[in-house]
Amino acid sequence: MSRIVMKFGGTSVADLERIRHAASRVRREVEAGHEVCVTVSAMAGATNRLVEQVSEAGRVYDLREYDVVVSAGEQISAGLMAVVLGEMGVQARSWLGWQIPIRTNAVHGSARIERIETEELRRRMAEGQVPVVAGFQGLDDQGRITTLGRGGTDTTAVALAAALGADRCDIYTDVSGVFTSDPRIVTKARKLERVTYEEMLEMASQGAKVLQTRSVEMAMNHQVRVQVLSSFEDEPGTLVVDEDEIVEKAIVSGITYSRDEAKITLFGVPDRPGVAASIFGPLADAAINVDMIVQNVSEDSAITGMTFTVTKADLERAVKLLAEQQQSLGYERLAHDPNVVKVSVIGVGMRSHAGVAQQMFRALAEKGINIQVISTSEIKVSVLISEDYTELALRSLHSAYGLDSE
Amino acid sequence: MSRIVMKFGGTSVADLERIRHAASRVRREVEAGHEVCVTVSAMAGATNRLVEQVSEAGRVYDLREYDVVVSAGEQISAGLMAVVLGEMGVQARSWLGWQIPIRTNAVHGSARIERIETEELRRRMAEGQVPVVAGFQGLDDQGRITTLGRGGTDTTAVALAAALGADRCDIYTDVSGVFTSDPRIVTKARKLERVTYEEMLEMASQGAKVLQTRSVEMAMNHQVRVQVLSSFEDEPGTLVVDEDEIVEKAIVSGITYSRDEAKITLFGVPDRPGVAASIFGPLADAAINVDMIVQNVSEDSAITGMTFTVTKADLERAVKLLAEQQQSLGYERLAHDPNVVKVSVIGVGMRSHAGVAQQMFRALAEKGINIQVISTSEIKVSVLISEDYTELALRSLHSAYGLDSE
Repeated sequence: MSRIVMKFGGTSVADLERIRHAASRVRREVEAGHEVCVTVSAMAGATNRLVEQVSEAGRVYDLREYDVVVSAGEQISAGLMAVVLGEMGVQARSWLGWQIPIRTNAVHGSARIERIETEELRRRMAEGQVPVVAGFQGLDDQGRITTLGRGGTDTTAVALAAALGADRCDIYTDVSGVFTSDPRIVTKARKLERVTYEEMLEMASQGAKVLQTRSVEMAMNHQVRVQVLSSFEDEPGTLVVDEDEIVEKAIVSGITYSRDEAKITLFGVPDRPGVAASIFGPLADAAINVDMIVQNVSEDSAITGMTFTVTKADLERAVKLLAEQQQSLGYERLAHDPNVVKVSVIGVGMRSHAGVAQQMFRALAEKGINIQVISTSEIKVSVLISEDYTELALRSLHSAYGLDSE
Repeated sequence: MSRIVMKFGGTSVADLERIRHAASRVRREVEAGHEVCVTVSAMAGATNRLVEQVSEAGRVYDLREYDVVVSAGEQISAGLMAVVLGEMGVQARSWLGWQIPIRTNAVHGSARIERIETEELRRRMAEGQVPVVAGFQGLDDQGRITTLGRGGTDTTAVALAAALGADRCDIYTDVSGVFTSDPRIVTKARKLERVTYEEMLEMASQGAKVLQTRSVEMAMNHQVRVQVLSSFEDEPGTLVVDEDEIVEKAIVSGITYSRDEAKITLFGVPDRPGVAASIFGPLADAAINVDMIVQNVSEDSAITGMTFTVTKADLERAVKLLAEQQQSLGYERLAHDPNVVKVSVIGVGMRSHAGVAQQMFRALAEKGINIQVISTSEIKVSVLISEDYTELALRSLHSAYGLDSE
């Protein structure tokens, strides 16, 4: 007997037919003698509709009320899943975040789970009942509903698996696993049998949408065995595991991209100590995240250039803020460009293998693709290029690193 | 300064424009210096959609899960109303049933409010904050969400008004008050300035849909001054008050109808003590409510006939149950007819005025309308007639009792 957490995303509970299909997978695990805890997202599209309603209701709304409204989506899907399981003869009951409770901090809209009380859930699971936990939501210490940010049900699932000491956390989604690249663009992309936590974390942060970044972090910290698999096909998915469990490590496991970047360049910045702080301090104060940063070398040693990226959503605000402070920052001119994409190659094998970045630059140069910004980490190389070259770059790199399927 | 509870029904919060309109009424009361507590229904249509989803999910569903799903509608509208009020500069926060909490019994789907903790609400109202309470929902002693039955937000409003010691409970709806009859049928119907609790209670029970029956009962028991008024027009509505407050009592205040009746007749029932119990006992056990009952007089003293009404929704079940027990009940033949309507004339003046029923029978006879069943109470006379005569009966009675507007 194993203890399993099963998470069903929005497309897996999009309508009653799909909920029934998902429920039949739950029943199969229950009938195999496993203790099962289910967690569900809102029905596909529901959260978007609720977010739209809130943002139409007020320009600057109270995020606590935002959480009240948007958490209703998972409340509905959890109740419906419990009814469908009951109809199939599986003992089940819904649990809302506040009922368990799933305790979070008070950062409404993107709260972090702090702890989950599991005594009652464990007792009922031992009696054969399946808890159906509303994903994405929790309770702060003021007794108000919080939500965990988009994709938050992944984190609910992993946190439940960690708290329950589950043997496995199965994330059912609309893709059959984690791929070497986006199969919609790279037709030769292959499904990975296994991927390490570190790689998965980089993939999630660098644009792969298969798992919420925070859920991978949590899985890594608590050594939760996560499986990403399709709720529509009946085949094994991708296991996210510790590096020790992977014998033959690929140098590059995946190639991701993020269109969510925009580039800002400040020309003629006085080159003196503290200038970076004076630029990025105000942006941080305005909660604008800066991702890649390059300080340009110039012939005139007294002035420099500064290029960096922010999310497309923050671009307008960032430009306005920097323009207002032109005098105090002392730069000459500001340029910005939203038509960029960040492409990253990721693999734990890089640690022991030189030349991965070089190979990337060569492959892109051969196709005449200009690299605008570079950033690297121990297991990742990212470059910023013109958005026009997204598909070409992904396919070229996928071939260059020998990832293409036969 | 007064303390006011304002309730907005589904049509008053049907979309963001209407929520804004409702919120502007709240702001007006706040700006006049009043302490205001708001409660809202789900956006029009939302509850129906949720009920439909649950009933598609399972044939015989757990009512506790039904409550989880359908209560989401009021959660959404309460959050949106709080955001809209905030946008208008009115300090507001949403409160869900479990947060206050509104304690109810555990009869899921149609729970009764047992008590409401108001200390925190009072404190915040005194500081100028407007609580926006999700209507229709509460919390049972197992920590699970309950709902109060259709129209339950009326009861939430009155219960809040009673618990808060409010000076007034304003029920905003899509009609401008309580009318002498349904204005869609009786074009000469007039809006009542005042109506007594007892009359309102009979009207609600006998088919008028303007207030949930239970809310009127509760208003009467706690002497809550209820006002029914339109959220779309800017004019006074109808006050529901104690009989003492009405100087000139009309003999008949209102004429209602209910199409929700179906007639069953058992012919050739053995006329012996206990026969009624043996017929109605099994129906009660099956949770089938019987409304009007007449035992026919027959020439043969050994057998009798029994006519009674059930709701149209229960008709099929009732007929099946009685057919199964034909042998043990010993009746000869069963007939049933769903094409009936119950028409009632209501007025506290009847207590001191004879001949009201007689006047009704005469008015109907003049139009050739056959009365099938009669039932009376202290302040009401109801008759069951063929559904075909609904409009004719209502208009004739409205004229006969001198209720027509000029």
